[in-house]
Amino acid sequence: MDERSLLQKIALLLGPDAVADDCAVIDLGEEYLVFSTDMLHEETDFPTGMTEWQMGWMAAAATLSDIASMGAEPLALLLAAGLDRPERLVSILEGARDCCERHGCSLAGGDIDHHAELTLVTSGIGRVEKDKIVRRTGAAPGDLICITGVPGSAQAGFAGYPEHRKALLEPEPQVRAGRIIAAAGATCMMDVSDGLALSLHDLLVANRCGFAIEAKKIPVPAGVPYDEALEYALYGGGDLLLLFCLPPERILPQEIGATVIGRAIPEQGVFLDTIPLPAVGYEHEWK
Amino acid sequence: MDERSLLQKIALLLGPDAVADDCAVIDLGEEYLVFSTDMLHEETDFPTGMTEWQMGWMAAAATLSDIASMGAEPLALLLAAGLDRPERLVSILEGARDCCERHGCSLAGGDIDHHAELTLVTSGIGRVEKDKIVRRTGAAPGDLICITGVPGSAQAGFAGYPEHRKALLEPEPQVRAGRIIAAAGATCMMDVSDGLALSLHDLLVANRCGFAIEAKKIPVPAGVPYDEALEYALYGGGDLLLLFCLPPERILPQEIGATVIGRAIPEQGVFLDTIPLPAVGYEHEWK
Repeated sequence: MDERSLLQKIALLLGPDAVADDCAVIDLGEEYLVFSTDMLHEETDFPTGMTEWQMGWMAAAATLSDIASMGAEPLALLLAAGLDRPERLVSILEGARDCCERHGCSLAGGDIDHHAELTLVTSGIGRVEKDKIVRRTGAAPGDLICITGVPGSAQAGFAGYPEHRKALLEPEPQVRAGRIIAAAGATCMMDVSDGLALSLHDLLVANRCGFAIEAKKIPVPAGVPYDEALEYALYGGGDLLLLFCLPPERILPQEIGATVIGRAIPEQGVFLDTIPLPAVGYEHEWK
Repeated sequence: MDERSLLQKIALLLGPDAVADDCAVIDLGEEYLVFSTDMLHEETDFPTGMTEWQMGWMAAAATLSDIASMGAEPLALLLAAGLDRPERLVSILEGARDCCERHGCSLAGGDIDHHAELTLVTSGIGRVEKDKIVRRTGAAPGDLICITGVPGSAQAGFAGYPEHRKALLEPEPQVRAGRIIAAAGATCMMDVSDGLALSLHDLLVANRCGFAIEAKKIPVPAGVPYDEALEYALYGGGDLLLLFCLPPERILPQEIGATVIGRAIPEQGVFLDTIPLPAVGYEHEWK
């Protein structure tokens, strides 16, 4: 199944806003509410050896990352769990609750059901001031392209590098960084959970400019041969990092550990060192 | 799996508020936000012969019913769909969208995934004035016990009575009724999707009084032999009706088609014609 072609059908049915951002946006008058849901299945989404606590953590982290990518402050999450064995529930809930609490949010309830394959669906809401919300659209030529953290870390963990295993199994949503980036005046933002290359192509669809990045500026997972590390950084999935653009006159906040990796350009396209970067990467399966 | 014993574990982990009502309640300052999620699976939740459009409708209706039962106005729903075949998506989305639009709400987005068994998870948010919210707790002896519509209709449809098939396959969430009931001064409310008897026992847990109903006052599905119809009305699942209590000095709004079926009493228990009514009914499986 190609997720992106199904998204086009959804856009036709529900309108373009339904697929425009990492969250749906609801106008509450004085502020915006952002609202997101993520479905994870054991076979396709949870790496072998993951504990139930980590599954719960990851389910919560995926939705918190969507909220973070709009510059919003998370308010509450719900967890719907389809359980193959009911005794797995408590550890899953503890993981989701711990992730929520770490990021100033509450796990406020949910739903439970029996299911042949463990299925976790988190939904979450956040609030954001109207002048702070950051969407996928809004970039302009000249903007600096920035990313928090080290892309490719989760994929390196998946490939067996033990120092990156935590990035794979317990990804940290960038909730605080998302608020700081919004306050710093970012023009567009999304999370890179499907990989840097695919995410840049998502920004390309949403904007009237292109994106040119430089390989030497991209942080890559430590302890991995460079060519392999760069491959992971460009095409690997599972990192809950924030990719955003910042006008050149704005100051990149130092405390969020972000790196400038390129610039938005007038030409519509995604380029790595001036060569077109293909729209490939992780789409819903670890393989 | 016994859902209610798992709910006790959840209450221990997340606090009693996590399982206290049909929705989680978030304080936004000037008003409350209510937030709910429901997971449905094809094998256990969708009756044989149901169309994809009806599956989408039912998924949306279940969450809208949760929002209605708090007296809230729905704002937006999301649908996470685990699809066995991607070509089912469009009809499912159309059903969910049509149900949302009928009830003044938008289907604002969601998530899609591949899954062996069709799995639909809706999450929804609503808003409610602080003085209008109705919870499960709040009943007092003397209150009138009321229900909208005809309980047992979905179960009669499941049993093969064709005139009740629509109640089974396209249940109508009582969104407008929920708002009217809240404005009328209801003291407690919930939806009866698990059946009237189980719902009364849920109210028993949440309140410091008991609930005595009278068989002859309970509306039952037409065209079904009376004993069978009463059985369905008491124990059948799948009806998205609202069960609520109203102080005797308040006026039951006529336009919502509700019936007074009994009274809240000082004695802690659930009684049908003075005989204890067992806490049995539909719990997550049609059989």
